[in-house]
Amino acid sequence: MPISRFEPPKLESLPPDIAERIAAVQEKSGFVPNVFLALARRPDEFRAFFAYHDALMEKPGGLSKAEREMIVVATSGLNKCQYCVVAHGAILRIRAKNALIADQVAINFRKADIKPRERAMLDFAVKVAERSHEIDDSDYGTLRDAGFSDDEAWDIAAIAALFAMSNRLANAFSIRPNDEFYLMGREPRG
Amino acid sequence: MPISRFEPPKLESLPPDIAERIAAVQEKSGFVPNVFLALARRPDEFRAFFAYHDALMEKPGGLSKAEREMIVVATSGLNKCQYCVVAHGAILRIRAKNALIADQVAINFRKADIKPRERAMLDFAVKVAERSHEIDDSDYGTLRDAGFSDDEAWDIAAIAALFAMSNRLANAFSIRPNDEFYLMGREPRG
Amino acid sequence: MPISRFEPPKLESLPPDIAERIAAVQEKSGFVPNVFLALARRPDEFRAFFAYHDALMEKPGGLSKAEREMIVVATSGLNKCQYCVVAHGAILRIRAKNALIADQVAINFRKADIKPRERAMLDFAVKVAERSHEIDDSDYGTLRDAGFSDDEAWDIAAIAALFAMSNRLANAFSIRPNDEFYLMGREPRG
Amino acid sequence: MPISRFEPPKLESLPPDIAERIAAVQEKSGFVPNVFLALARRPDEFRAFFAYHDALMEKPGGLSKAEREMIVVATSGLNKCQYCVVAHGAILRIRAKNALIADQVAINFRKADIKPRERAMLDFAVKVAERSHEIDDSDYGTLRDAGFSDDEAWDIAAIAALFAMSNRLANAFSIRPNDEFYLMGREPRG
Amino acid sequence: MPISRFEPPKLESLPPDIAERIAAVQEKSGFVPNVFLALARRPDEFRAFFAYHDALMEKPGGLSKAEREMIVVATSGLNKCQYCVVAHGAILRIRAKNALIADQVAINFRKADIKPRERAMLDFAVKVAERSHEIDDSDYGTLRDAGFSDDEAWDIAAIAALFAMSNRLANAFSIRPNDEFYLMGREPRG
Amino acid sequence: MPISRFEPPKLESLPPDIAERIAAVQEKSGFVPNVFLALARRPDEFRAFFAYHDALMEKPGGLSKAEREMIVVATSGLNKCQYCVVAHGAILRIRAKNALIADQVAINFRKADIKPRERAMLDFAVKVAERSHEIDDSDYGTLRDAGFSDDEAWDIAAIAALFAMSNRLANAFSIRPNDEFYLMGREPRG
Repeated sequence: MPISRFEPPKLESLPPDIAERIAAVQEKSGFVPNVFLALARRPDEFRAFFAYHDALMEKPGGLSKAEREMIVVATSGLNKCQYCVVAHGAILRIRAKNALIADQVAINFRKADIKPRERAMLDFAVKVAERSHEIDDSDYGTLRDAGFSDDEAWDIAAIAALFAMSNRLANAFSIRPNDEFYLMGREPRG
Repeated sequence: MPISRFEPPKLESLPPDIAERIAAVQEKSGFVPNVFLALARRPDEFRAFFAYHDALMEKPGGLSKAEREMIVVATSGLNKCQYCVVAHGAILRIRAKNALIADQVAINFRKADIKPRERAMLDFAVKVAERSHEIDDSDYGTLRDAGFSDDEAWDIAAIAALFAMSNRLANAFSIRPNDEFYLMGREPRG
Repeated sequence: MPISRFEPPKLESLPPDIAERIAAVQEKSGFVPNVFLALARRPDEFRAFFAYHDALMEKPGGLSKAEREMIVVATSGLNKCQYCVVAHGAILRIRAKNALIADQVAINFRKADIKPRERAMLDFAVKVAERSHEIDDSDYGTLRDAGFSDDEAWDIAAIAALFAMSNRLANAFSIRPNDEFYLMGREPRG
Repeated sequence: MPISRFEPPKLESLPPDIAERIAAVQEKSGFVPNVFLALARRPDEFRAFFAYHDALMEKPGGLSKAEREMIVVATSGLNKCQYCVVAHGAILRIRAKNALIADQVAINFRKADIKPRERAMLDFAVKVAERSHEIDDSDYGTLRDAGFSDDEAWDIAAIAALFAMSNRLANAFSIRPNDEFYLMGREPRG
Repeated sequence: MPISRFEPPKLESLPPDIAERIAAVQEKSGFVPNVFLALARRPDEFRAFFAYHDALMEKPGGLSKAEREMIVVATSGLNKCQYCVVAHGAILRIRAKNALIADQVAINFRKADIKPRERAMLDFAVKVAERSHEIDDSDYGTLRDAGFSDDEAWDIAAIAALFAMSNRLANAFSIRPNDEFYLMGREPRG
Repeated sequence: MPISRFEPPKLESLPPDIAERIAAVQEKSGFVPNVFLALARRPDEFRAFFAYHDALMEKPGGLSKAEREMIVVATSGLNKCQYCVVAHGAILRIRAKNALIADQVAINFRKADIKPRERAMLDFAVKVAERSHEIDDSDYGTLRDAGFSDDEAWDIAAIAALFAMSNRLANAFSIRPNDEFYLMGREPRG
């Protein structure tokens, strides 16, 4: 199965910084997630994409790592993005230490085993994903009532927006989720 | 009128590379487009955003500059993003040397004074914006028939995806278009 | 560029009352808006259309002229009607003495520089345009709270309804906005 | 039950031309359809509305009377307009001399006992009602292939557009269909 | 006219229990509703379908028979199911002893002559039909406030769900409503 | 966590046939899927539901068992039914002996690793689920071209319709998928 509609570049032809980033993720995960290979075809876009990703998903403080992945999985489910639901579903299971949460959030976050704070976060994220032109003061008020700071509100919106882009890239390019993701984080840790 | 729901940083507090970029755009345009100030609140996101933007919108070769802006205006109109329609509408008028095209494309690209090639490009871009999960081989075939290379197809999809993000950020943060944009490129050049 | 999919009648062949109306608008505006020529192909429909238009848009009292045009621009934007957004956008700029308002209202009235009274008016108009079967007492109550009389509520609904028709005619017949409209009301009055 | 949210005028207070029109319809039908009373509150709008209605629905030649009513019933069903479906359903049954056709067309014209020509007509009318911004050459080509002249295409579009207005007025004003309409044209003629 | 896209079985070839059920309905109604013949092609599915139907629509206690039919007509109208609207519209007129109610509910239940209790019931039923994934505690709370027990809430949801199935079968198989249904219950009882 | 909004009956209070069915599924699966307990609250509905289910999902011949489950998973994903996607996703993995297929089909069947025959089957099933009123001859023609008999076309439609009901019941009653389903069929068989 091709990993994307666009042929990925040969690893040995990659600029050193990109080769290094790919080697690092392989070291950490045991495989190279296909989005790295697919986007490496365009080094400048690769760099910008992962810089944006890291700025929102890896920065210290604010939303927990599990909360961030929950936003990704909920909005990617609505956008019917196979790569993002499968790959970030795996990461969410691991970050939340919860084998069930990713499928629940991807199918219908309203029925998921989540806290009221997480529900408020996802309601906002989903509105950014689907009807951002209707976002207004009352949405920010609801977030504040649920305990989110203004900077966390920014983060929720920005993560939903980043994956509005990412979902469309993965869908348009038919980026295939690696087989490894499907089972990750599903098994009880012995 | 505030330029965004989130207070922009003071110019003198900005990291030098960001201050420099803002100075450069002010030098070129005569004013600072509000998206620069609004995003400067988050330097890492600012850098990633404009790196992505430049990689797609400013790179040499491929789609013409006017074609790229046409994609932005058509998809931003569908997403009801005031900042992007007004700001990129101005740029489109200038790049296309056409005072009417931006309003036409923003309201209903199907009735705009565009060529069949441009129509095929916008049909694809709009599908990426609205129903990317349904993109398939036949969409790429239509683009090829209209004269686009595979790399140009990537560009169309990627620009539509980037502004799927950008529209949601501008909507969620209520980024206000600068008054200067509304009239730019509308007057006949003497 | 043809002004419509249907060839307009020759001016000299028009019934005198229609010729007169067209001469009057040309005298006033400096050009003949294309909707007059396009509809003149059917004299009885022309007469009924402009009688309806004048009864709602020109009658004394009630909503201000700028408010009426705001309804037209907001609902025509949602219906993606190029003629109505461009032509009535020009009239709105002039009536409201505001160079920015028309683009703002056409793209997303929720982000426009409008007063709460105008927002309530547009919320109602847009509901008539998009979901009239759900209009109920509570919508009229909201209008009353915003200061509108029952007769003004009728006017808002009727203008939104008239342009539901007008937008569909202009879209189905591909009526082209005159080039003159694009720039009208955009320049500061010296 | 009130015939409309807005109180209708007293019959004796009506301008003579409107009183006369109402007397004529009562003479012909045996009762006064409520839309006449509801709109009589605004004489100028009443005159324009019925002038438009007559120009499209009563003019000689072109589409048959039954075809015109079919357009009204199909589009009014989609717009969920109780007054228009019930009242024009009755007229359609009478004009088409068919007791079943109105309910079939109102619920789902695709399953109605209609000819291919009528199906092509309704497909076009429904596109005008729901997605007029997507109407293009190919829609007119399909109509031509089904035997419609360009002037008949205009009529189909204009009737669908007129009832886009009419449906919204009846919905927004809660105009109630007269009880008499429900049974009209349903019984076999002895 | 065929009663369905799939040829119905010959009556003499039917299993005895099914033949008996069909004879009983013919005895009671004076004709065999086409859904019985259409589904008899598959005896096991026929038995399951009518067992489900009877369990919800015929059981003693709880919602009135007229209320149950109202749910069927409202949701079948939204699903554009010709068979179900026409056939159950007839039953609703008879059960409610009201010649007007079925058309009103099918076209737009919000404008029908119904009580607040019935409106709450239909709001819930329609949400089950159209957006069941958004049903939550507040919907059940609203039903309780309108006087419905939890078991009646189950019934409303289950009837809406049963006809979600039934509407899709009738639409996919083009099951034709018998001519007899159209006039049933419309005439004043002498 | 409750298995449903409605309290399930005590096992010892169940009618013998229902108790037996539940014992059988527990014997076979090692646990009792929650839908059995949730529906047992209503014995007649339970019997009808599983009779219908078995008639379509367990009968010999025609569509393969894996194909039938694929229809369930694809349509349940669109209806955002957590119970049905998780439970039938497990069954699909087992029936298809494929650890990846269920997530792929649930998220976006257009990107799943399926054959053209399966794609045609799912396109039809999804149309039944979402727009059954538009099903016509051409849909059956496409199925025939893909190798399906008329009776298999009935099966596809009927399965999609049955789960249109089932999804709405599970959503409205908040039936919770058993934890056991999430991991079933995901691990390589040693």
